[in-house]
Order: sequence, then structure tokens, then C-alpha cells
Amino acid sequence: MNTTPSDTIALLVELVRRNSVTPDDKGCQAMIGERLARLGFVLESMPSGGVTNLWARLGTEAPLFAFAGHTDVVPTGNEEDWSSPPFAADIIDDHLVGRGAADMKGGVAAMVTAIERFVESGAHKHGSIALLLTSDEEGPATDGTTVVINKLEHRNEKIDYCIVGEPTSTNKLGDTIRHGRRGSLGATLIIRGIQGHVAYPHLADNPIHRAMPALNELTTIEWDKGNDHFPPTTLQISNFNAGTGATNVIPGQASVEFNLRYSPETSIEHIQSTIKELCSRHQLDTTLIWKDSARPFITTPGTLTQAMQQAIVSETGITATLDTGGGTSDGRFIAPTGAQTIEFGPINATIHQVNERVSCTDINSLTRIYESVLQQLLG
Amino acid sequence: MNTTPSDTIALLVELVRRNSVTPDDKGCQAMIGERLARLGFVLESMPSGGVTNLWARLGTEAPLFAFAGHTDVVPTGNEEDWSSPPFAADIIDDHLVGRGAADMKGGVAAMVTAIERFVESGAHKHGSIALLLTSDEEGPATDGTTVVINKLEHRNEKIDYCIVGEPTSTNKLGDTIRHGRRGSLGATLIIRGIQGHVAYPHLADNPIHRAMPALNELTTIEWDKGNDHFPPTTLQISNFNAGTGATNVIPGQASVEFNLRYSPETSIEHIQSTIKELCSRHQLDTTLIWKDSARPFITTPGTLTQAMQQAIVSETGITATLDTGGGTSDGRFIAPTGAQTIEFGPINATIHQVNERVSCTDINSLTRIYESVLQQLLG
Repeated sequence: MNTTPSDTIALLVELVRRNSVTPDDKGCQAMIGERLARLGFVLESMPSGGVTNLWARLGTEAPLFAFAGHTDVVPTGNEEDWSSPPFAADIIDDHLVGRGAADMKGGVAAMVTAIERFVESGAHKHGSIALLLTSDEEGPATDGTTVVINKLEHRNEKIDYCIVGEPTSTNKLGDTIRHGRRGSLGATLIIRGIQGHVAYPHLADNPIHRAMPALNELTTIEWDKGNDHFPPTTLQISNFNAGTGATNVIPGQASVEFNLRYSPETSIEHIQSTIKELCSRHQLDTTLIWKDSARPFITTPGTLTQAMQQAIVSETGITATLDTGGGTSDGRFIAPTGAQTIEFGPINATIHQVNERVSCTDINSLTRIYESVLQQLLG
Repeated sequence: MNTTPSDTIALLVELVRRNSVTPDDKGCQAMIGERLARLGFVLESMPSGGVTNLWARLGTEAPLFAFAGHTDVVPTGNEEDWSSPPFAADIIDDHLVGRGAADMKGGVAAMVTAIERFVESGAHKHGSIALLLTSDEEGPATDGTTVVINKLEHRNEKIDYCIVGEPTSTNKLGDTIRHGRRGSLGATLIIRGIQGHVAYPHLADNPIHRAMPALNELTTIEWDKGNDHFPPTTLQISNFNAGTGATNVIPGQASVEFNLRYSPETSIEHIQSTIKELCSRHQLDTTLIWKDSARPFITTPGTLTQAMQQAIVSETGITATLDTGGGTSDGRFIAPTGAQTIEFGPINATIHQVNERVSCTDINSLTRIYESVLQQLLG
């Protein structure tokens, strides 16, 4: 197989044309698996709860280097708002437009052709190469990467290095590597009062009024100052709903949802006890339901980050920043196994938006960067 | 016609059996009008926007004494929750159960039979008697009493004394006369921020967080201390809605509804300018839409309150308290014309609830009280 830079774009076009909205993989993984099987990869399909997962591995010896990614995409929104149809994969002025082009079929296409080039050129000298794909990264993520990782851990199959191909670049390809992520902790807080008529407030207990000083305090807590790798912990209230709709009724309860993105300087236990104490001190009658979405993780700068930074500077001339910002990614499931885990991929400016797009030049550069990392670690 | 106390209950049964949910009068006013026409009343139907209104007057000379009331009722809610069907008017242990029994077909039935007794007995010596009925008191109230009052004002027809038959009694028939009402001012406050992702709060501007300190201040303002006739002004937030439903999105705006019940010690202008200043000081980007539902009114203790208190103490032995509490009533449209306006009627404990009910004994007493007021003022 002749893998040239344009082979990456050809694969990306094929992937984008598959309308693989979570959890529907639409055959993306089978297509990729077929290509890797030709190189000698052993394929394991690990479906779970309607989600398609693939674990493909070449070789049995350590160290095990893995690329990880997802074939699912978020919904398009109103298709009429797009300048090109979201699954047409039109290329306009070097940019491939389409849902998932940047998040993250661009990264997936680059991984696959980088592996092909590396293996076909005979540069693969030691260790094993694997590819982990799921169709449940944009969804609940309960049947995706975590299922594969659990299975690997169960049979003691250990990843040493992992690159997640999420779009981490901000302004230029290569400016940002993520070497960790903040934790994500959500909560639903129900504050109970006593329903009544606005004309008789003394007979009621307005849960909105009760909530106000407590929530005001909640939003102004300084949880920590962050550290060298992490920005300070933040808390945002995303939803606040109270009221019967009638303008003359004091509602019986208020429902608040909030989310923290937290650094390892603050523990989940500390957050939970602080908020519990705050509710209690404000004498609120509450129910508090927590959702522990992601624990923070960090990959200490070392072999993998150095290889990636070296590959990036060679290709682009840019010295990449190591960063832990942004949302959550499936890195949260991989890093706790002890694998050095980083994320690197194309510019994320248009992800989850209409006219999501990626630069073809960047995707071709990304392929060479991924190939260079393989070369440094397994060549 | 032989009007005995049980004629009031018979009329009440007939009224309750008509399912006259706002704005449908279901023929209640026609039935009452027919009875009054027999006494010599001149009937004027003043329909407006689907609402049925009746102005019935006997005599042309001053002073003009008017009863005012409504034939519409609020919806039943789930009929299966009622112990008796809500329009069956079953009488159980002296209590007539049914939607509108207390609010306010009981008062209307008592007015009608009190007028009948007073006129038929030949006690009516001077002045005029009128009855004002609407089917839009429980609704928007834009096509009801206000339409009749406007028409009367336009032709310079002036009410001197008015009794609104709302259920004002709290624990015992006769304990409470309303001689005024607080004003009611509503507002919808839209607070704008900038939508974003909870993981990138620095790129967003959370309108919930922005609202919190301002609303906390809003709910703790002491507007006034009330006065001899009015309790202090109160403000209640009835609805607070913000959020896209997604737990990871900072919403672009928050919508708040609040309502003030205010005494004449605080003007509507003062309230509006205070809240406008508060929003501005908190640097909120807002839209504020006011709803001026009712201005406060007061009938200074005098001829009418004294006649009513005398009638009540004679019938029940109770010295009625003069009060300005509760919600709004159509008295707000009548009092500004200069009419001495008070409200008096049966116990309000079950109004707008399932199993709304009224004591038949009380309704018979109420009839005698109304008749006594007529006797004192026009006898």
C-alpha cells in the first residue's frame, strides 16, 4: 500500500461521509480494522450496550504503544446552517468541512496512515502498536473506552504509552499538548421550601430566596490556586429551575445543577464536604446528588511528552505547551492504568459547531508527527 | 316570593351546579337577573371579549349602594381528588361542597336573597341598589368589572357604597372585613450573560452567577414598615429559570419573575426606580418588563365599615377586624372611583382547593348581615 499524505485525506473523507452520530459507528471501525489487519494487526471487537469498540494490536512484546480515539461524532444541529452538507466532506481552500472532521476523525485518519507508513517502511523495530477506537466518546462514555480498558486490565495487558488524537491545538497545529485533564464533578441540588401564595409569604418558605445567599457563596469559593500543571478549580451553575410558571405562586422547591472542573490540588472529598457544610450552615433542606464524571489525571513530563514535543518542533517549528485545560476526554480512563497518556491533534476552534473543519495541510503534518513519535519510541 | 334562609342555599345549589369556569358564566347571571327584574331592577348586559357582565340597578336616586361579585370559578383540578363531584353541590354535615361554593357563589347567593328580602319587605326607603356581576374575576380581569366601572364612569353613574362578596372570613364568619388591598406589581427580569462551556468559564459570562448577589439583595430589601392599615410591602420571586438542560453548558440568560404586594407607604415609582438602580449597580445586562396588576386602595373607616361591623356583631357576636391582607380583588377597580368599598364574605379556608366548601349556616347568616347593611344605609 502506498501511503502518501493524500492517503490520510482520502481516509478522512471516507470517515466523514459516514454519519456516525454517537453511538453509531456506521462501519468506520470495520473499515479501519481491515486496513490494519493487512499489516498483521490482531483485531478484537468489544461491543457493549450498542457501542462499537475496537482493540487492534500488532506484536506482543513491551513496550506497548497505543493510539486511542473515537469514531462517533456529535449531532450536526440544523443542517441548513452549514455552508456544505455536514457529511459531504467537501474540501474548500485546503479545509475539509464536515461533522467530526476535527473531533476527531482527522486525528483517527492520521493515526491509521501513520501506523501504515511506519510498519510498511520496516521502521518498526521493537515493542507493540495498538489502536483503541470507540463510538461512545461523545455520549455517556459508559460503554466505550472504559470497557476496553477494563478488559485489558482484567487480562493484565498493559499500555505503556498512549496518544489520544483529540483536537488539542488552539491557534496553530502543534501549539498545545494535553498531558492531563482536570476532574469533572457534577451535582444536582434540590432545595426544598414550602409552597404558597405570593400574597401570604409568611405561610410559605421560598426556596429561591433561601438558595440565593448559599449559591452566592458557592460561586465565590476559591477552591485552590491550581499548580504548575493545572489552572485553579472552577465551579459553574449550569441550570437553575424553580417555579410553577404561575406568577403568584411561591414554589415548593428549587433545582440547581452545577459542575466543577477541579485540579488535583482539591479532592473530590473536600469539595463534597465543603458544599455539604455550606448547605447545612445556610440551614437548607436539601437533597444533593453527585456525579463523579472524571477524576483529574496528569502524565509527568518524560519519554512520551519529549518524543511528542520533538516530533512537533521538527514538523512545525513550534515548541508545544503542555496543558491540562479543556473538557474531559477518554484519557481519564487510560491514564489511571499507569500509561503515560497525552493528547494531541488538530485545531479545535470549530468542534461541535456548524461548519466544523480541519486544514488538510495540518492533517498531513499531524500524520508525520504521529509517525515520528512511533519512530522515536519503537523504531 | 317567599325568601327564607333556605332560599339562599337553594340559589347557591343552582349556581354551583353550573360549571362556570372563567370566563364562562353558564347562565348564572341571566338566572339572577331574572330574579332581580321581578323586583323592578333594570338590567344591563355589558359583555366584553367573551366575558359576561351584568349591571342591575333599582332606583335612580343617590346614594347608590352596590353589591359586586363574580360568577366565574377556578378550574377543579383533578375531579377524582374531590370527595363529592365539584359541580354536584352536595350538602354534607351542613357544608355545601363544590367549586365556587366559597369563592364566591356563596356570597353572590346571599347578596341576591338579601336584596330580595329587603325590597320585598318594603324596607327600602331611599337611595338605589345595584348588583355588579362579572365572569372574569379569576381570569385576566381585563374584560370584567373594569369594563362595567369604565362604562359607569363614562356616563357619570357613581357608586357610593360597595360590598364585594369575596370570602374574607378566616376562622369564623365575621372575623375579617377587608377595607383595602395592597397593590400588586409583577416583573419579568431577563439577565443576559454569554453562553459557553463549563470547562471554559473565562470565555463565558454566567448569568446565574451574576444574578445571585443582585437577587439576594432584592429579596432582603425592607421597602417600608407598613402602616396602621397595611402590613409591610413584600417581594417574592416566583420563578427562576436558567439553563439549557445540558449540565456542561453555561446558559446565555436567566429569566426571573417576581411579585410585590405593596402598601401605600411605597409607590410603584419608588419600587421600579429602586430595582432599576439595583440592576445597574450590579452591572447586569437586563430587560425588565413590569406588570402593574393592582394599585393599593383603602376605604377609611366610616359609614360603610361601621354599618358592616354593626351587622356582623348583631348576627354573630363577633367584632370584625378591618384588614387589608390577601390577594387582589375586583375592589381595586371600584375603590378608585371614590366609592367606599369593602369586602366581606364566608370563610376562605378551602378556596381554590379540592373539596371547596361553605357552611350553610354561615351563608344564611351572611344573608342576614347583608340585609342588615342595606337596612342601615337605605332603610
